[in-house]
Amino acid sequence: MITVWGGQTSRSIRVVWVLEEMGLPYRLRQVDMLAAEREPEFLTINPADYIPAIEDGDVTMVESIAIMEYLMARYGPTPLAPAPHDPNFAAYQQFLHLGEAGLATLMMPVLVSRFIAPEAERDNWGATWCLQSFQKRLTLVSRRLANAPYLAGDAFTAADISVAYALNLAQRNCGITLGDAEQAYLARAMGRDAYKRAMERSHEGVNT
Amino acid sequence: MITVWGGQTSRSIRVVWVLEEMGLPYRLRQVDMLAAEREPEFLTINPADYIPAIEDGDVTMVESIAIMEYLMARYGPTPLAPAPHDPNFAAYQQFLHLGEAGLATLMMPVLVSRFIAPEAERDNWGATWCLQSFQKRLTLVSRRLANAPYLAGDAFTAADISVAYALNLAQRNCGITLGDAEQAYLARAMGRDAYKRAMERSHEGVNT
Repeated sequence: MITVWGGQTSRSIRVVWVLEEMGLPYRLRQVDMLAAEREPEFLTINPADYIPAIEDGDVTMVESIAIMEYLMARYGPTPLAPAPHDPNFAAYQQFLHLGEAGLATLMMPVLVSRFIAPEAERDNWGATWCLQSFQKRLTLVSRRLANAPYLAGDAFTAADISVAYALNLAQRNCGITLGDAEQAYLARAMGRDAYKRAMERSHEGVNT
Repeated sequence: MITVWGGQTSRSIRVVWVLEEMGLPYRLRQVDMLAAEREPEFLTINPADYIPAIEDGDVTMVESIAIMEYLMARYGPTPLAPAPHDPNFAAYQQFLHLGEAGLATLMMPVLVSRFIAPEAERDNWGATWCLQSFQKRLTLVSRRLANAPYLAGDAFTAADISVAYALNLAQRNCGITLGDAEQAYLARAMGRDAYKRAMERSHEGVNT
């Protein structure tokens, strides 16, 4: 049984979304990143103290996109991951990585500056630079969506799970305004049954 | 023929390093990111205006780790990329992604704050937060290197190309001090003939 450490609206939603799309059994361990300290058991899983992490038999892993790649390769094949000879493979890989390294990671300094920085530091130069870099990279998504319903082409893939998480985070928590095409794309991706199940599971047992 | 847009000490070194390890032919187009404007031809390749980018026949791609995955899958198999059934596959994927999404991207706000921010903004709150997050994630690398010579285990892989770039960037330009084990690891990785060839090619035709 695969254990996912994370929960609610964190990056663990990406992992749970993949598991739901693939129909794999898993259990979810809630980690409260707003608590002053984490459970010792979690810190043995990820001493660097961030989520998500997974355990799968002898395997322990962090980094949401890496975990997605592991699950799809280990328990696939799956249409979520186009094969290397697929003409959409390059676009798939580009957007799979862009969603975290080029988009969501850049939102982290913006997010923490808005929510945990001292009042006088909220509009700091570093966070503003990240916001501008995000906007530049977002043009790659916008251009792609002008020509295809999903980032790898006609079919929904893990690249959409990667990028949809980033766009939703940016819009909900970081003051980014998305255009109509990106809004429609998010609604398409997040309208999937697997996403809805992932959200339900990720909030189970949590007081909101 | 594969064309790599980038050069010198940018993230394109990762792509060129993979090409040299695999013995694939390529040409390199220098992009000067310090110039006020980029060549129009480059901006048609990457309208989001960052490097590296590649062209390979009909394929155009950005994101250094995505490009590495594309090249290894398209022109492999290669020992740089352990197969999904390999016991080191999970560690390989984790560190391949960590090198950019968890380490190098976090150094960008630090780097630009040090080198292009106005004097009064250099020690901004966002950049300091990124530095602390980098240090936390670096503990994953340190723990791994206490038990193995390379991040995926006994053999050098693309995960090392990903992380070695990040550590070198952090040490040279961002004020990060690495421990002895990380220094020895960097020397091991960057001592490879393919890295030396990659550095030579990446600096050709550039006045230093």
